[in-house]
Amino acid sequence: MKFALDDLDSSVRYRLLTGLVVPRPVAWIATLNESGSVNLAPYSFFNVLGNDPPIVAFGASEKAPGVRKDTATNILRTREFVVHLATPEQARLVQNSAAKFPYGASEVEALGLRTVASETVQVPRLEVARIALECTYETTVTIGESEVHFGRVRHLYAADDYFEADGRSLRPGSVRTIGRLQGPGWYCTTSEQFNLGPMPRPDALLPGPSD
Amino acid sequence: MKFALDDLDSSVRYRLLTGLVVPRPVAWIATLNESGSVNLAPYSFFNVLGNDPPIVAFGASEKAPGVRKDTATNILRTREFVVHLATPEQARLVQNSAAKFPYGASEVEALGLRTVASETVQVPRLEVARIALECTYETTVTIGESEVHFGRVRHLYAADDYFEADGRSLRPGSVRTIGRLQGPGWYCTTSEQFNLGPMPRPDALLPGPSD
Repeated sequence: MKFALDDLDSSVRYRLLTGLVVPRPVAWIATLNESGSVNLAPYSFFNVLGNDPPIVAFGASEKAPGVRKDTATNILRTREFVVHLATPEQARLVQNSAAKFPYGASEVEALGLRTVASETVQVPRLEVARIALECTYETTVTIGESEVHFGRVRHLYAADDYFEADGRSLRPGSVRTIGRLQGPGWYCTTSEQFNLGPMPRPDALLPGPSD
Repeated sequence: MKFALDDLDSSVRYRLLTGLVVPRPVAWIATLNESGSVNLAPYSFFNVLGNDPPIVAFGASEKAPGVRKDTATNILRTREFVVHLATPEQARLVQNSAAKFPYGASEVEALGLRTVASETVQVPRLEVARIALECTYETTVTIGESEVHFGRVRHLYAADDYFEADGRSLRPGSVRTIGRLQGPGWYCTTSEQFNLGPMPRPDALLPGPSD
């Protein structure tokens, strides 16, 4: 099938893009509301986009015409956020945190979650989370009705049992997070993993003199 | 474990970020070399980041100090690229296309791949690919040594057998692509999928008067 994207309804285009660009990592983002309560929401238009310095970004559409989503509103005011990555067992909590609560409501309180103080930002991390990236706001790119917010990762928490005895190398296969697929409520796991070994040398791929 | 990211070696930081922000979708990107041959390389610092308009972005580190990767060099010159998403059966080809060929070499030729003309850009798509997004260059965000390149998706190709009879709705579970994990050569599939149903209404989550 072929589709000229400008000719499609926004909703059809959204279903195609989110169904074909998979699996998407899920940023389960905590921010501080003006009241000090903790906002929590998932974003799958998200990824790490650089290492030097460590950069993440997420795209947020408008909540209503001209109105930012609460996560973006909070980040632009406080310049801080915490990105959690969730396990399959936490997927229901992730999904429930996407419910359309009124601004200022705390999904963390509604879901009965506990938080733990972060090391470098005022936004706490979720106690239940096995991975948390403490981020400071860098910049926003606006393209049409979409805003892409960039953050710099300042500090990282990950569960001890993900690591080798050296305390800094991740054990292969230990990290099991959810990926986002198309449609309401569809996720995948990273359970089926495979390894293709190191990157090949070009001379092993290019035809030799006798080929 | 806890890590202050500024205190880490770049390589340690890279292994942690790529091991914890998973699964990452893999953009298998084709661009045109100056000679007209087709460059091909995978990028997992990538995602769709907006729908109105349809936006993708990928992060590319430097190939050497001060030297852009070939994909970025070509995009900045031609302002076009094609993003393919690969199946598990194509993972070996994806991995091999990441080999460090000299600039101007065509990974497409080295790997013996055929191409098909695109609809809206000069860059062809891979015949073997079941998903291809034709993109035009939008802008670049530079943060430290990282550049993040944004593209607007103009046209989309996807295999017929992904679709319902209506020709525009994706069949649930039909799209099987690879996700990138940590370390050289580690990938996951989207084979294990689950559905949590529609997004809940907040009043089903918030405590009621009697709680």
